[in-house]
Amino acid sequence: MNYEVAFVIGIVGGLIALAFALIQSRRVMRFPDGTEIMRKIAAYIRRGANAYLKRQFKTVAVFYVFMVAVLAALAAFGFASPFIPFAFIIGGVLTQLSAFIGMKIATHANVRTAYAAKDSLNKGLKVAFSSGTVLGFTVIGLSLLDVSLWFIVLRFVFNLPPGEIAENMVMFGVGVAAFALFARVGGGIFTKAADVGADLVGKVEAGIPEDDPRNPAVIADNVGDNVGDVAGMGADLYESYIKSMHAAIALGFAAFGTHELMWASMFLPIALAVVGVIASLLGTFFIRTDEKASQKQLLNTLRTGEYGSAIIAAIGFLPVTYFIMGREYWLGLYIAIVTGLAAGCLIAYFTEYFTSSHYKPTRQLAEAAETGSATVVIAGISLGMKSTIAPMLIISAAVAVSFVAGGGVLGGNGADMNIYRGLYGIGVAAVGMLSTLGMTLACDAYGPVADNAGGIAQMSGMDPEVRERTDALDSLGNTTAATGKGFAIGSAALTSLSLLVSYINIAFGQVGEMYLSFRNPTILIGMFIGGMLVFVFAAMTMSAVQRAAGSIVKEVRRQFREIKGLMEGTAEPDYEVCIDLCTKNALREMVPPTVLGVATPILTGLVFGLEAVVGLIGGATVLGFAVAVFMANAGGAWDNAKKYIESGAHGGKGSECHKAAVIGDTVGDPFKDTAGPSINILFKLVSTVSMVFVGIIAAYAIF
Amino acid sequence: MNYEVAFVIGIVGGLIALAFALIQSRRVMRFPDGTEIMRKIAAYIRRGANAYLKRQFKTVAVFYVFMVAVLAALAAFGFASPFIPFAFIIGGVLTQLSAFIGMKIATHANVRTAYAAKDSLNKGLKVAFSSGTVLGFTVIGLSLLDVSLWFIVLRFVFNLPPGEIAENMVMFGVGVAAFALFARVGGGIFTKAADVGADLVGKVEAGIPEDDPRNPAVIADNVGDNVGDVAGMGADLYESYIKSMHAAIALGFAAFGTHELMWASMFLPIALAVVGVIASLLGTFFIRTDEKASQKQLLNTLRTGEYGSAIIAAIGFLPVTYFIMGREYWLGLYIAIVTGLAAGCLIAYFTEYFTSSHYKPTRQLAEAAETGSATVVIAGISLGMKSTIAPMLIISAAVAVSFVAGGGVLGGNGADMNIYRGLYGIGVAAVGMLSTLGMTLACDAYGPVADNAGGIAQMSGMDPEVRERTDALDSLGNTTAATGKGFAIGSAALTSLSLLVSYINIAFGQVGEMYLSFRNPTILIGMFIGGMLVFVFAAMTMSAVQRAAGSIVKEVRRQFREIKGLMEGTAEPDYEVCIDLCTKNALREMVPPTVLGVATPILTGLVFGLEAVVGLIGGATVLGFAVAVFMANAGGAWDNAKKYIESGAHGGKGSECHKAAVIGDTVGDPFKDTAGPSINILFKLVSTVSMVFVGIIAAYAIF
Repeated sequence: MNYEVAFVIGIVGGLIALAFALIQSRRVMRFPDGTEIMRKIAAYIRRGANAYLKRQFKTVAVFYVFMVAVLAALAAFGFASPFIPFAFIIGGVLTQLSAFIGMKIATHANVRTAYAAKDSLNKGLKVAFSSGTVLGFTVIGLSLLDVSLWFIVLRFVFNLPPGEIAENMVMFGVGVAAFALFARVGGGIFTKAADVGADLVGKVEAGIPEDDPRNPAVIADNVGDNVGDVAGMGADLYESYIKSMHAAIALGFAAFGTHELMWASMFLPIALAVVGVIASLLGTFFIRTDEKASQKQLLNTLRTGEYGSAIIAAIGFLPVTYFIMGREYWLGLYIAIVTGLAAGCLIAYFTEYFTSSHYKPTRQLAEAAETGSATVVIAGISLGMKSTIAPMLIISAAVAVSFVAGGGVLGGNGADMNIYRGLYGIGVAAVGMLSTLGMTLACDAYGPVADNAGGIAQMSGMDPEVRERTDALDSLGNTTAATGKGFAIGSAALTSLSLLVSYINIAFGQVGEMYLSFRNPTILIGMFIGGMLVFVFAAMTMSAVQRAAGSIVKEVRRQFREIKGLMEGTAEPDYEVCIDLCTKNALREMVPPTVLGVATPILTGLVFGLEAVVGLIGGATVLGFAVAVFMANAGGAWDNAKKYIESGAHGGKGSECHKAAVIGDTVGDPFKDTAGPSINILFKLVSTVSMVFVGIIAAYAIF
Repeated sequence: MNYEVAFVIGIVGGLIALAFALIQSRRVMRFPDGTEIMRKIAAYIRRGANAYLKRQFKTVAVFYVFMVAVLAALAAFGFASPFIPFAFIIGGVLTQLSAFIGMKIATHANVRTAYAAKDSLNKGLKVAFSSGTVLGFTVIGLSLLDVSLWFIVLRFVFNLPPGEIAENMVMFGVGVAAFALFARVGGGIFTKAADVGADLVGKVEAGIPEDDPRNPAVIADNVGDNVGDVAGMGADLYESYIKSMHAAIALGFAAFGTHELMWASMFLPIALAVVGVIASLLGTFFIRTDEKASQKQLLNTLRTGEYGSAIIAAIGFLPVTYFIMGREYWLGLYIAIVTGLAAGCLIAYFTEYFTSSHYKPTRQLAEAAETGSATVVIAGISLGMKSTIAPMLIISAAVAVSFVAGGGVLGGNGADMNIYRGLYGIGVAAVGMLSTLGMTLACDAYGPVADNAGGIAQMSGMDPEVRERTDALDSLGNTTAATGKGFAIGSAALTSLSLLVSYINIAFGQVGEMYLSFRNPTILIGMFIGGMLVFVFAAMTMSAVQRAAGSIVKEVRRQFREIKGLMEGTAEPDYEVCIDLCTKNALREMVPPTVLGVATPILTGLVFGLEAVVGLIGGATVLGFAVAVFMANAGGAWDNAKKYIESGAHGGKGSECHKAAVIGDTVGDPFKDTAGPSINILFKLVSTVSMVFVGIIAAYAIF
């Protein structure tokens, strides 16, 4: 088979995914959108979310124009490929587009979910989950199109040789990564500022319930779910998914560049992704429940969907790998791919173990709340740090297994091609891990829709039963979201290792010689700077949330004080001001950390040289992975410990213990929804930026 | 000059330091030890501290016997040098001894400081500072003896060639590191369990003041200052100081092993240390104040002592370096040494900037307490993370400068000897940075003595003025301690880099070939495991504090409930039970993290090979350095923000803001006094253990 032309299959796969997304979005829209008051509230939320995303795009556009100018200048002087500026724009736009589509349907699905939940839990699930599939399949569809079309253009329009295609493609992620980071950080700041601000004044000071329409920040809070947990997450996983393919394609060329399987190895990641599209699509049919299903049955059905897709994919990979890579190579690579998939499932299991109140760690955390907020904070931090043990060991094992299965020799000396075969094994393991993203992302994205539905139900004064149902859906979502996080975190680590190797190859191509030993002090300097970058980045995003929440607190207090009749329900609060404040703060605060992420590798390279950047990528990946897991799991566990106490344990709602747990949860908010997930993008951004600037660094580095 | 014999000068330097320590301790003992009740309280504290240290020694002895047996077996089968088991024992015993001497004098000085403070602030300072110098000069004296005597024995008794001497000596730190880790972790758990336990029940629940004699945990709290902040810190810095010399000696051989300056380069670190002894000794004479000096003048006098010693040392290094290394090499190395000293001072400055309430960061942290405990916790965590920027950049710059000054070529290819010259520059920079340890440690160690004096003053019902004076001394100590921390942290990073290189050299010597590129996946696996190790270790020590504090809380509550007349002051609490509980908990909980630190590099090596251990050391150093700085600075800033509020800002003592700040401080306690400082030892332990086990790993590694 001609695997150059086979990339057309990628386009077909992408179109299938998009068609399915379209069908699902029509299906969502067919559900009734509720009463007049529900529609009014939903319109508020939708308007706020759209307005934010538009302004975010404008802010990012300034940065984009600047970056494209820089990249164009680099290209003009021969320091970078002329395709990079275009890929930068296209990647950024497509990332934005998939985030936008996912969010748009979410802001239509929220009210429909609330209305459907009036009838039954199941109907609510159907609407919310369908809207989740729209995000999931839009992300994988557009990414597949992005990769496959670029390949075809580079190969058949510009007639580039395979090596240049590989080198170009692995750098194409830079625009995607920059946009994803903006979206994650901006959305994360927005949602947590609104959330913390609404809770601190509304729940704690004024004593009104969550999602009470009298709270001026309540709409902003609901907008936040959409711009942070839907749009931000969509952009994030667009980046993860496409980067895993980019990196694997580049390693395919490195491993088989002089071999008849060259095009086949570059095509394999695309083929795996297409299998994943189909597996995810089939998986959605497992999500069937009868009308009287209990919450536990619903959880089981979602789990069946996730694991069902994974199993279908694992089965589908077998003939595809055999057919494409042939008798000699298929088995090892197949083992590598399935290792990736299995590692994702294992990390997911341990994420759930450390963060769900069904298991010991979170139960003990809830117990620590009995001696006060200081102990619950200390216990949560140690829980988060301890929880890094599982993903770190699983990833270490997955790296070793997929490297050996791919054909590498552990303890070998790197002098032969085997090392690239092994690294290619790691690359396809990452693709395998993310292959069922359509499904896992759907399970992730329906959570915030259910959350929003609950808010709308509350604000529109629907029957408390509806709220209970949406809460049940939301809590289900938290559990399945752990799976999604497991795959995202694991793949980030594997992909980043692949990108590190690609960076080294590209740098070698520039200078012909690098001294990559740990005896080289610039490598160690780079590692220190990489470590610092992660911490400073996390600190910046967290203090941004703290500052933004502070401004919301002041505004909500002002409205309570100045708007007469607000507490009595005779006057309406000014929702717009809060939305506007969140928007302004998020847009202003998302810029410095992102710029830091882009500038640090370039400056480090220009001062300390190409080797220092190797250290920087390595240091940022290791520290970033550990810190991201720590923050995500600590935050998740605090959240669930609080919910566990609210369900009646340790004195229940309103007890001293509960108050301590709320403090833990508030500390955890920026951990798990702002800093943690952004770090995953940060360290991949660092490696891609480094590749793009290799030429200029090689030419002008001081040392 | 014959630099083999010159090591005798090291012995002389060590003896001078010890003689000075003896003089100072006599001076302390000549002060009157107060009233009968003061003597009684002091005796309680002394007995508790001695009892703890004895039992700690017994617990550690079990581990030591086991380790010595393992090392003896390794030596018997030719996998390790036969000197290692002996060096392991001697290093451990000397570390213990210096911790014990420092603590013994501190438990005599506390009551004398309290009594002297009755007369004046100055007199109190004199006693407390003199007792600090005893610890400082015992540590440097014993270390110098340890290094110099071993050299002379290996060279003139066993006639070892220089390469073997270098290789042996760099491994000799393993016993020191293991003991230092036990002492830091055990002491840290003891002191924080007692502190948190006493505060939570005494101050918060029962509403009695700090250091109230009715609180059953109050003596344990004071014992904790001695076993944690004096003995633990002494052991810690014994390790830092001796390791910096070991590493520099080994690199001296690597750089000049085939050169006439070989012995000179191995002797230079000893010579620098001797200059440092004299500089520190002269520095103590700056600590002179007239009787009416204000607190600010006292601070200035301490600063003059610290910086004065550093300047004297810097001047003294010049002729010494010139004389020993000769016209061709002296200037570069001198620049490297002074760079180390300057980097230490700079890190110290930034440590103070981030943690003192005189500057913006801690003021802003205090402000964040206004919106509650959640925001003050988030703000403290971001402050700590952000504060890593300064030491990381300073260390990066110091590495680059001292490498180039030493003769290395940044961006070079490592094929020639220049790289070792440069690395030797880094090694002597670390020695330079720590050279004035006698002085900085004295300024560090007098803080807990003053703290204890305050406790004794309170418990014995002395005039409140006395307590005010001891508080002033204590707070001075906090400021000067920042300097000590700066040097300790900076030197840990530099020394660890030197140790990493020594490990690589030793491993190369074993196997002849290693693939140290970042393309090697076992290196990346090692880095992941190293990162995980740091986080899991930190989590273990923090949850140990939390558990131990919980058991103290229960016991104090029980005594308040069951002992009749306790609150009225007619019955005495049972202090012993609390001391005993702290002791048992600390001894039990210090074992698993230390064993983890020893076992992880060995197991990683046995599974993934020698290269993986390189990655592990690198990952643990980078992540460990970042996390140690983060935890120490966050903890320090929370502490000082609380004190700042107590001084009247943001509503002062008893306000809501103060309560929030107390939560922050309690979270910070295990950060800054247990986990943070232990991590500095951990990553140096990892590299030394790895070297010792190189032989067995090379022989039996699976991959």
